[in-house]
Amino acid sequence: MVNKKSEMLRYVQGIKAVDPEKILEARLYIDGLVKPPGSLGRLEQIAAKIAGITGQVKNTLPQKCIIVMCSDNGVVEEGVASAPKSVTHMQAINFTQGITGVGVLARQAQADVFPVDVGVDADINHSRIISRKIRKSTWNIARGPAMTFDEARQAILTGIEMVKMAKDKGYQVVGTGEMGIGNTTTSSAILTAYSKLPTCRTVGKGAGASEETYRKKQAVVMQAIETNRPDLGDPLDVLAKLGGFDIAAMTGMFIGAAYYQMPIVMDGFISAAAALIAIKFNELVKEYIFESHASAEPGYLELMKEMGMNPLFDMGMRLGEGSGCPLTFKIIDFACAMVNEMATFAEARIDEDYIEKTKQFEF
Amino acid sequence: MVNKKSEMLRYVQGIKAVDPEKILEARLYIDGLVKPPGSLGRLEQIAAKIAGITGQVKNTLPQKCIIVMCSDNGVVEEGVASAPKSVTHMQAINFTQGITGVGVLARQAQADVFPVDVGVDADINHSRIISRKIRKSTWNIARGPAMTFDEARQAILTGIEMVKMAKDKGYQVVGTGEMGIGNTTTSSAILTAYSKLPTCRTVGKGAGASEETYRKKQAVVMQAIETNRPDLGDPLDVLAKLGGFDIAAMTGMFIGAAYYQMPIVMDGFISAAAALIAIKFNELVKEYIFESHASAEPGYLELMKEMGMNPLFDMGMRLGEGSGCPLTFKIIDFACAMVNEMATFAEARIDEDYIEKTKQFEF
Repeated sequence: MVNKKSEMLRYVQGIKAVDPEKILEARLYIDGLVKPPGSLGRLEQIAAKIAGITGQVKNTLPQKCIIVMCSDNGVVEEGVASAPKSVTHMQAINFTQGITGVGVLARQAQADVFPVDVGVDADINHSRIISRKIRKSTWNIARGPAMTFDEARQAILTGIEMVKMAKDKGYQVVGTGEMGIGNTTTSSAILTAYSKLPTCRTVGKGAGASEETYRKKQAVVMQAIETNRPDLGDPLDVLAKLGGFDIAAMTGMFIGAAYYQMPIVMDGFISAAAALIAIKFNELVKEYIFESHASAEPGYLELMKEMGMNPLFDMGMRLGEGSGCPLTFKIIDFACAMVNEMATFAEARIDEDYIEKTKQFEF
Repeated sequence: MVNKKSEMLRYVQGIKAVDPEKILEARLYIDGLVKPPGSLGRLEQIAAKIAGITGQVKNTLPQKCIIVMCSDNGVVEEGVASAPKSVTHMQAINFTQGITGVGVLARQAQADVFPVDVGVDADINHSRIISRKIRKSTWNIARGPAMTFDEARQAILTGIEMVKMAKDKGYQVVGTGEMGIGNTTTSSAILTAYSKLPTCRTVGKGAGASEETYRKKQAVVMQAIETNRPDLGDPLDVLAKLGGFDIAAMTGMFIGAAYYQMPIVMDGFISAAAALIAIKFNELVKEYIFESHASAEPGYLELMKEMGMNPLFDMGMRLGEGSGCPLTFKIIDFACAMVNEMATFAEARIDEDYIEKTKQFEF
């Protein structure tokens, strides 16, 4: 049996910093494009960040995919979720048809979607669902840890493996998605543990909890922390005690993307919780992460504050599944096109011959 | 000679409200899609709004264009701009090459860009620039009105004509763009007149003004209002006195889009100033306008507050040209795809035969 602990450490410690000189070179090039310096805002920052990762000023990242980690969470037995657990299974199947939110949006961004079963509480045998089940559902975090340390490492290694597989298949950018009824509760528990904020600021209504469920959810989060007493100095401890297989596998995706030097797109609240854990493992991970939308979950912005990150857009979305990634993929395309196709000031001068040559078009 | 006044009134008064029943029908349909109700946030609102305009629940708007109103502004003689006036001319030419910011971003969204000369201070004879020059540059608003009432009407009618032309050519959604050195000053003057806010909140640094230029710009805005004493009850008066041909033509685009029942995308600060004037002419115009990005200009959010509107994304962009429209076009595509392609809860049930049939794909 492979020693999961040493294997995980190899990835966590093997992450390289991005190339600061290439970022600077990209910034200088972008400042020479025919526009006031800085006037394309975050498109400029995104383009420079990509240059730091790829080591090239000009990039195109046409091959995109979203990996959707599907798993059940034992904490649903506390009655914290608005949907039955069976929805995790149902949606895992639906992802293979491209008829869910993330599937439809991904198609618009020419991105593929790969569902992965890391812990769905059902027997799944479907050729389009990647089977990496660790166990059927985590345990209930209100009563004890969600999983063992070894299971947490296995989930992380699964996330790393999936990014490696995507890279080997030619994908140049990867998005994080999840499906797991109950995972806003586990995400809130992680955020609450680290931030020590009151649960009114860290717990939201998830997919649509009632007032009663919402109050219960806040109490369950506090109970999970009191029962488990996570060691904030050890991200594996926090993850194993308060997280889920979905979050742990996404944590692995962030670590894997950094290790394999691949841009990775964050989605909403659950994805941000996984990113926070990954950054606690190694802060260099952050240099590979691209923000997407501001989740409507109240804890999302608190998580982003913890990481010093900012969303690109706020459209009141709170679907999960990785549904924020497709639009971010398009934003990345726009940023790359800016660098590749805009003229520099030197090129954009008025040249009479040039103008004559292009007088061929009638409105 | 056509009576411009009565012609303009015909358009302004001929605007119809969108179909509230179709919006409701779209909302109910969207609530039945396989996701928690409301969880796709503004994508849902955008889709319902489009349904109200087109009269259909399911829509696709693949044909997109951005019309870029190019004009010079007499106020630049006060030294309020960071770039020389000749840049308006240079960029008008560059738009025809697709090498400016809006051109590059529009290509990513499969959108066409049409520059229109409504008042560039140079002789332009270029087959790819639509020639509708009203006059070479407006007058200096710090000394008197920017234009006559008749010129303002002519610029508005030009905007309406361009939307009609786009519609006749098969475009289904249109974006507003502009190029006019000095037009953040005229936009700030319009905002300041209506909002009565201090100039520290309505005036920004445009394309990159120095501290000294910035203070001068604030003083010039106040001087323009004191000199012209615009009649806030008459949007044509405000527009003719404080605006520009670029803003007036964009005002016409908003009016025209509403008249011809076509979705129209707002860009940043200057576009929002034009939208405000259009809404003052007829508040029904608002039902046809789609917000895009939050401009980095400080007055932008004040303008949006005046109109009760909210940007979709904030990426610190302040280029103008219509550069916020391409990304919004993509967001509209995502919203349409959501309605057209997502399964309803009824369709998304687990059906063993269906699952069997689709087991054909290996990761």
